[in-house]
Amino acid sequence: MNREQLITQIFEKKTFLCVGLDTDIIKIPSYLKNEEDPIFTFNKAIIDATSPYCVAYKPNLAFYESLGIKGMLAFEKTIKYLKTSYPHHFIIADAKRGDIGNTSEMYARTFFKEYDVDSLTIAPYMGEDSIKPFLKYKEKWTIILALTSNKGSLDFQFFENQDHERLFEKVLKKTQQWGSNENIMYVVGATQGKIFKDIRKIVPNHFLLVPGIGAQGGDLAEVCKYGMTKDCGLLVNSSRGIIYADSTENYAKIAGEKAFQMQQEMEKELNNIV
Amino acid sequence: MNREQLITQIFEKKTFLCVGLDTDIIKIPSYLKNEEDPIFTFNKAIIDATSPYCVAYKPNLAFYESLGIKGMLAFEKTIKYLKTSYPHHFIIADAKRGDIGNTSEMYARTFFKEYDVDSLTIAPYMGEDSIKPFLKYKEKWTIILALTSNKGSLDFQFFENQDHERLFEKVLKKTQQWGSNENIMYVVGATQGKIFKDIRKIVPNHFLLVPGIGAQGGDLAEVCKYGMTKDCGLLVNSSRGIIYADSTENYAKIAGEKAFQMQQEMEKELNNIV
Repeated sequence: MNREQLITQIFEKKTFLCVGLDTDIIKIPSYLKNEEDPIFTFNKAIIDATSPYCVAYKPNLAFYESLGIKGMLAFEKTIKYLKTSYPHHFIIADAKRGDIGNTSEMYARTFFKEYDVDSLTIAPYMGEDSIKPFLKYKEKWTIILALTSNKGSLDFQFFENQDHERLFEKVLKKTQQWGSNENIMYVVGATQGKIFKDIRKIVPNHFLLVPGIGAQGGDLAEVCKYGMTKDCGLLVNSSRGIIYADSTENYAKIAGEKAFQMQQEMEKELNNIV
Repeated sequence: MNREQLITQIFEKKTFLCVGLDTDIIKIPSYLKNEEDPIFTFNKAIIDATSPYCVAYKPNLAFYESLGIKGMLAFEKTIKYLKTSYPHHFIIADAKRGDIGNTSEMYARTFFKEYDVDSLTIAPYMGEDSIKPFLKYKEKWTIILALTSNKGSLDFQFFENQDHERLFEKVLKKTQQWGSNENIMYVVGATQGKIFKDIRKIVPNHFLLVPGIGAQGGDLAEVCKYGMTKDCGLLVNSSRGIIYADSTENYAKIAGEKAFQMQQEMEKELNNIV
């Protein structure tokens, strides 16, 4: 999916919600465990219930890998289901990969050719040759960790040079030279509040993938105030707050309601764009 | 495997070689492609030929994931084969993972419980809560990227604060507070030469996993000169230089010879330890 198509989806559906499919076998309603593929059954119901209210889905690979082969089959089935039934939804494989050049080539092939998702999250620590192999794929997106939503973001991402440039700012400046706002997005945690202002000084037009709303404590209004652009420029993710809002047989219905609530808030924010 | 057992293996076998199982379906001898599981067949032959000359094996997950479910089955079979037939070899899953706390928990469960490998490589960008879940597992090792072997290491790892502390030094100082030399190792590329001296000032006793010998141009004698400790303190990895040394039906025999050559060089270096 290209930038224009993504923006069109956002303004047509009046939402920039991304639903995080962090599907944990321990947390899904227990009666599902009798299903042949409980993870996929859960994902399918969540997707069917939330799809009108979101533009993107983000399965985090850790949850699938933790179940071994069975988990990866559920991941594959989920991706296929999305591509077949909801081809206008943007798919983010949240894998936080990154390795030396020849190895990153392999990861790029896996996610952009085999699974054929729209985008992949990447850790920047290993620099240029770890990121460039992903940028060669047309209409595919590399989503680079800049300032994450967790407490550990304080440990290294704020490391500052003598010109008071912080590591996350260095990452934004340097990596944007390797691609454009047509193939790079950045992860910026909703918990980072006003720092979105500093981020927008460096990347005024790039899309930002924003985790940390809900369970992690981030605030949507603040994110929009400091981070939104005329093209929206945001994909705001919620995982646990939506998919685990209910643990009975109503889980999908309640997830749909939670997603609808977020869409309503987002519609207001989009209407503020002049 | 604990530190003492690893050191015992190194001095008994007189080698600190780690063989990188970066098995690429495109690069293995073409006649193997008729096998039911070409990747596992290749790995098994390489392992059988090189095991007397190395103390560790390091499959890089990217190569297995790129083949989807089939690849992950080959990974699983390789790990099981190693654990059954060569239980004294240290196994490193080179996956370079790292995510927010609850997600890192999932990765730790996957690699340390499901696959039950000895160690996993981790990218430090997301800080403390992304690393700590791995450190809770007894006799398992977290191998943190400090200074990598690739050109891209120059982009962020040398980012320097006003006290001339570089990011990789900050990573070494900060992360060693979260564990000990009994459960943390660091990745330092062989291509970094004399910088091993600076590394050893900060982590005098930790084991270092050293990629970049061979195809990437690193020099064993230099690594040993600046990086070796009285306990050896090094696991030096070679992947392409060993496993793709030959592409005929003699590939395993030649891989064994290459590993033997490296063991011979390593024995000399170990004999230099007073």
